[in-house]
Amino acid sequence: MEGKEEDVRLGANRYRERQPIGTAAQSQDTKDYQEPPPAPIFEPGELSSWSFYRAGIAEFVATFLFLYITVLTVMGVAKSPTKCSTVGIQGIAWAFGGMIFALVYCTAGISGGHINPAVTFGLLLARKLSLTRAVFYMIMQCLGAICGAAVVKGFQENQYERLGGGANTISHGYTKGDGLGAEIVGTFVLVYTVFSATDAKRNARDSHVPILAPLPIGFAVFLVHLATIPITGTGINPARSLGAALIYNKDWIFWVGPFIGAALAALYHQIVIRAIPFKSK
Amino acid sequence: MEGKEEDVRLGANRYRERQPIGTAAQSQDTKDYQEPPPAPIFEPGELSSWSFYRAGIAEFVATFLFLYITVLTVMGVAKSPTKCSTVGIQGIAWAFGGMIFALVYCTAGISGGHINPAVTFGLLLARKLSLTRAVFYMIMQCLGAICGAAVVKGFQENQYERLGGGANTISHGYTKGDGLGAEIVGTFVLVYTVFSATDAKRNARDSHVPILAPLPIGFAVFLVHLATIPITGTGINPARSLGAALIYNKDWIFWVGPFIGAALAALYHQIVIRAIPFKSK
Amino acid sequence: MEGKEEDVRLGANRYRERQPIGTAAQSQDTKDYQEPPPAPIFEPGELSSWSFYRAGIAEFVATFLFLYITVLTVMGVAKSPTKCSTVGIQGIAWAFGGMIFALVYCTAGISGGHINPAVTFGLLLARKLSLTRAVFYMIMQCLGAICGAAVVKGFQENQYERLGGGANTISHGYTKGDGLGAEIVGTFVLVYTVFSATDAKRNARDSHVPILAPLPIGFAVFLVHLATIPITGTGINPARSLGAALIYNKDWIFWVGPFIGAALAALYHQIVIRAIPFKSK
Amino acid sequence: MEGKEEDVRLGANRYRERQPIGTAAQSQDTKDYQEPPPAPIFEPGELSSWSFYRAGIAEFVATFLFLYITVLTVMGVAKSPTKCSTVGIQGIAWAFGGMIFALVYCTAGISGGHINPAVTFGLLLARKLSLTRAVFYMIMQCLGAICGAAVVKGFQENQYERLGGGANTISHGYTKGDGLGAEIVGTFVLVYTVFSATDAKRNARDSHVPILAPLPIGFAVFLVHLATIPITGTGINPARSLGAALIYNKDWIFWVGPFIGAALAALYHQIVIRAIPFKSK
Repeated sequence: MEGKEEDVRLGANRYRERQPIGTAAQSQDTKDYQEPPPAPIFEPGELSSWSFYRAGIAEFVATFLFLYITVLTVMGVAKSPTKCSTVGIQGIAWAFGGMIFALVYCTAGISGGHINPAVTFGLLLARKLSLTRAVFYMIMQCLGAICGAAVVKGFQENQYERLGGGANTISHGYTKGDGLGAEIVGTFVLVYTVFSATDAKRNARDSHVPILAPLPIGFAVFLVHLATIPITGTGINPARSLGAALIYNKDWIFWVGPFIGAALAALYHQIVIRAIPFKSK
Repeated sequence: MEGKEEDVRLGANRYRERQPIGTAAQSQDTKDYQEPPPAPIFEPGELSSWSFYRAGIAEFVATFLFLYITVLTVMGVAKSPTKCSTVGIQGIAWAFGGMIFALVYCTAGISGGHINPAVTFGLLLARKLSLTRAVFYMIMQCLGAICGAAVVKGFQENQYERLGGGANTISHGYTKGDGLGAEIVGTFVLVYTVFSATDAKRNARDSHVPILAPLPIGFAVFLVHLATIPITGTGINPARSLGAALIYNKDWIFWVGPFIGAALAALYHQIVIRAIPFKSK
Repeated sequence: MEGKEEDVRLGANRYRERQPIGTAAQSQDTKDYQEPPPAPIFEPGELSSWSFYRAGIAEFVATFLFLYITVLTVMGVAKSPTKCSTVGIQGIAWAFGGMIFALVYCTAGISGGHINPAVTFGLLLARKLSLTRAVFYMIMQCLGAICGAAVVKGFQENQYERLGGGANTISHGYTKGDGLGAEIVGTFVLVYTVFSATDAKRNARDSHVPILAPLPIGFAVFLVHLATIPITGTGINPARSLGAALIYNKDWIFWVGPFIGAALAALYHQIVIRAIPFKSK
Repeated sequence: MEGKEEDVRLGANRYRERQPIGTAAQSQDTKDYQEPPPAPIFEPGELSSWSFYRAGIAEFVATFLFLYITVLTVMGVAKSPTKCSTVGIQGIAWAFGGMIFALVYCTAGISGGHINPAVTFGLLLARKLSLTRAVFYMIMQCLGAICGAAVVKGFQENQYERLGGGANTISHGYTKGDGLGAEIVGTFVLVYTVFSATDAKRNARDSHVPILAPLPIGFAVFLVHLATIPITGTGINPARSLGAALIYNKDWIFWVGPFIGAALAALYHQIVIRAIPFKSK
């Protein structure tokens, strides 16, 4: 993996570059990585390449499967009179987090594995993909989510509305502000994890970063669900909230919250962690 | 891992080839991987090699252990009057997914780690193994599943039939069409994950693909169980359904559904994601 | 990782050697790995090396922590009148499997990470360590297990005996033969996973084998617990059963079962999978 | 990864250096790793580098998110009259362990990923970071924990005190000595895992050590929670206990216990496992 570099400076300590867990990062003068250039706002070449449309289809299929599995899990728990004979609320959290893990793993090489308009938005702000591509992804994600929820509704026509269909609502006892806050911080946790996993600098230094990546991203989703299911049912993904809300009033906080959280995570990572504005090329 | 390539083009940016999570795949002109040739329909040489029979034995043992652990877990939950004092429905989902993770890990290097006729069928359609081998695997998987369920029955002779023996049936309130649909989409999730993990193109580019592979495959099984245990008990594996159904009527949907789902996943991956029919060698 | 090999035969397809998941193993003529020589029965040099005693201490500490965490988890569940307000039976299975994962990870480089006399016995049969070392490990494992259980007893003096102390017993409704069978097959699952993870041949070919190794080993323990807690409480580790049984009658099946299961797994791996007796050096 | 070494001694068995799981460590004369020099007590250069302050901010944000997610999860469980309709005690353990996994993954390359004053203390004793940095980290961790708990309190003003706010207390039926003991051993498990993952010697030999590292560290936290939630609610992190205890009396055992446990783990790893005092440079 680091063969080339080590061929050139053979006498160097070969562990100098890798950042061990537990010890503090040392300031280093030499740059051993190459920051990818910011993606252009419009990239006309994309529109004529098959990989662009394939990526959109992959986002559609992934979001479809995400809603299908998760809403079906939610319905299975909701239908049972006693939660003990279901997979429980914890099982719902595993369904959301586990699907993101598996789907990021499957689609990372095709579309980047967003499956979430808030993630696409955060990466757009950090100039990791073009605006054209971001808009295309968001549309495909929303369509996929709507279709996934619709298939579940097809299985359980007469019960679907009664059981809630996995839609996000603010629980009794919480204000709209509480729900908005929970969505913002929850999306921050997710998008911050995505940024940590896609950091070119860390990929070059920490051997565990690119290999484990889909796992902490999936865990981030699982953990936010453990914490905020009692508050909002956990959105942190506007496409998921839209798909599940087809038969309900959509609440604006499930669009505004995730986008604010994603923007904050993009700012935190690009400005504080990477200090990109203060660097001269 | 990429030592050889980098020796030849020393000046290249060494991170260009790897596809980071979160960013979109760029269209690339140079091929940095080699598509393995399609497996022949009949490969007479296989029948005289020890590795062929060893692979069949490994599939038998793996499917035996899979049924043994999972049916025993199901029986432990079924036997208890209150689900709270058992591992619960979520524990059953972990048993199925976890065993697939461990067994794919153990047998991947011996037989490819199928442990499921639907997976074998999907990989056959994609020409990843010969027809001879596929038929041999399916027979060994079914025999292993029957023996695994029979051992559990031996432990609990008089209770086995009363408690259901982990057999798949369509739950009250769902039609046969619902069950068939749940099996098709569930198997699609599993086989799509298997294809993503075995993609020669991705193995060359994404460092996390070959290393994590058994984990998302196991999670896919876990997640489908979370979602569809309330509908069919979750088959998505004809050998598992057959083994557990020895004392029951076998329902055709647990053979037809998984094979349709596997075929759809093979089509999706080979045609949409890899565009293999549209490529000239 | 494969740099050396590839330097020598530069023109070769660099993915030929790695066995992708899902595709069948091809028979290969060239050996790309080196079978380690069998460990001697007695290795006098070991007794004068610090690493020998350090390995024994590491086994003691690991088995101590294993019993401490797991028995404390069992006691927490046993003490509560309602299982719903505890981590539940599934939480107990996670405690056993998770500790084995973490401890194999921590001690693999020091002692090989056995933490179980049955694992040591299986590896001894396969000539992976000397008899001297195996006996030393088993003694240290049993001492560690006894101390770990004793510390938990110190916390809960007056309740410990009433709540069972995590000891293994055959549940009502099962014969001694059932318990013995459950212990044999359960230990087979564990030791078979250990052999698959330590296979020199697979380490050379599958990039995921050495990296993930502690995870499937931990999962194997978790899965056997999901399945057989309702039958025997799950031993599959004579030191664990001995440590927890200090205040109870020790049942011979928790020594005989695991050793038979470990021997069967060693035989299966060495004879069927690796065909070592039929090979000429 | 080991390309350079193998270029120099081409004839060597390339698997000699890696320690396979399951087999015993052999005593080796040649050193194939380089022990990093002990960190200085005061490192004045640090104070003028941006990476020092960035590391402190990363510790603040990580501990903030840790308390936010975990205390919110605890509150969600505490608020519900029946535990079955919550993520349960096991879900709380997952929240603590999972957050440590995700946050160690995200911050390892920035600050070393401590998120816990006891971990910082243990690494300070082993001279892995300077005293200046250790003190700065601990302050930032405590501030982050206080802010994280305060945000949760903001969501649930009137219920927060009644429900306990995730504060650590010694459960009825246990003495202060029991609680102290549980904190010491629990922190030992965590810090011992951290040391095993950061070992320069093992990083050089075991390919799975640097890659999996955040996972066993997260699991260690999860496992200690499974075991000791019934005793103390599980502290093993003075910042976490302080943050959650803002509205309660802080109990000294949640500071003294973790520091003793961390010191014991540092001693065990540096003296027994690595025998550093007995080595001449």
